Amino acid sequence: MKKELGAKNCLYPLPTTIVGALVDGKPNYITIAHVGIMDMGSVSLGMNKNHYTNAGIKTNCTFSVNIPSVKMVKQTDYCGLFSGKIKEKTALFKTFYGKLKTAPMIEECKVNMECELIKTVDFPNYDVFVGKIAYTYCDESVLTDGAVDFSKVQPILFVMNDRSYYKLGHKFAKAWDVGKELK
Amino acid sequence: MKKELGAKNCLYPLPTTIVGALVDGKPNYITIAHVGIMDMGSVSLGMNKNHYTNAGIKTNCTFSVNIPSVKMVKQTDYCGLFSGKIKEKTALFKTFYGKLKTAPMIEECKVNMECELIKTVDFPNYDVFVGKIAYTYCDESVLTDGAVDFSKVQPILFVMNDRSYYKLGHKFAKAWDVGKELK
Repeated sequence: MKKELGAKNCLYPLPTTIVGALVDGKPNYITIAHVGIMDMGSVSLGMNKNHYTNAGIKTNCTFSVNIPSVKMVKQTDYCGLFSGKIKEKTALFKTFYGKLKTAPMIEECKVNMECELIKTVDFPNYDVFVGKIAYTYCDESVLTDGAVDFSKVQPILFVMNDRSYYKLGHKFAKAWDVGKELK
Repeated sequence: MKKELGAKNCLYPLPTTIVGALVDGKPNYITIAHVGIMDMGSVSLGMNKNHYTNAGIKTNCTFSVNIPSVKMVKQTDYCGLFSGKIKEKTALFKTFYGKLKTAPMIEECKVNMECELIKTVDFPNYDVFVGKIAYTYCDESVLTDGAVDFSKVQPILFVMNDRSYYKLGHKFAKAWDVGKELK
């Protein structure tokens, strides 16, 4: 017997990211976990219109998506607690730039995606920025056989329902494979 | 020192879902993990235009997002391996309907979201369907203090980079809280 909960979003967990953008010419970082993949090469960021960062993304048409590890949970949460309007957040991290030049990235995050804004999907209170991934950077320490290994990245997984961060568990099956047993 | 990997999508893990829709009047299920949250009440599904299910979503303007548990990994993977054009997938599950009437849902999945199509974002090879969550249903067994508890849901997390399914790890920090220590 199912219980009806009303309209409750349960599409969790999602990976917690720190989004970087230049705002008024200065790097700013904001924590965003309402993210997604639209087609293979693009990512979406659901960002409340009251955020300081949105104007910077619209001006430069670039942003970065940085994947913090569980060890960075305090800095990550901090970037979601305080607006760039009132707190200078760049001192928390070492910033670097890539080929797009205007998307500040976080050295301490093991994986960084440098993105070009290709669409903005408008919602009443949210800008959903869709970025084409232009370049991806990572630390050698998170690679296994040349591919990014998420058991090494140790991402921070976000669940809104209990407002909590979770760790990634272990790998237990191969995709496009384990289902063949039912054929 | 960062290594540049080209344009590699690393926005993982994402929750593996089974999307339900009526196609030619019959329930069909497809595995989709390129999903996201756009604003608080909506979800997005990135679905290759060659999928059988897309026409059904466009016709009825409804779909369901079902969250399978790790115990259902074989059935879940199967729904991603075989198209509804060639395989009848409804026999795998017990189907139920909710208030929208045209969004088939999976009884065995502990959490089900019944959605109304509100936007379609067009990509060259993908339809990105954006659904407003109308009603959410769940098994009482996954609730803790009235909220959906993802440690009980045991979702299947997808990582494209190694084409694998992962389990959810344990909760380790509170969001909008743990970062206050840095204030």
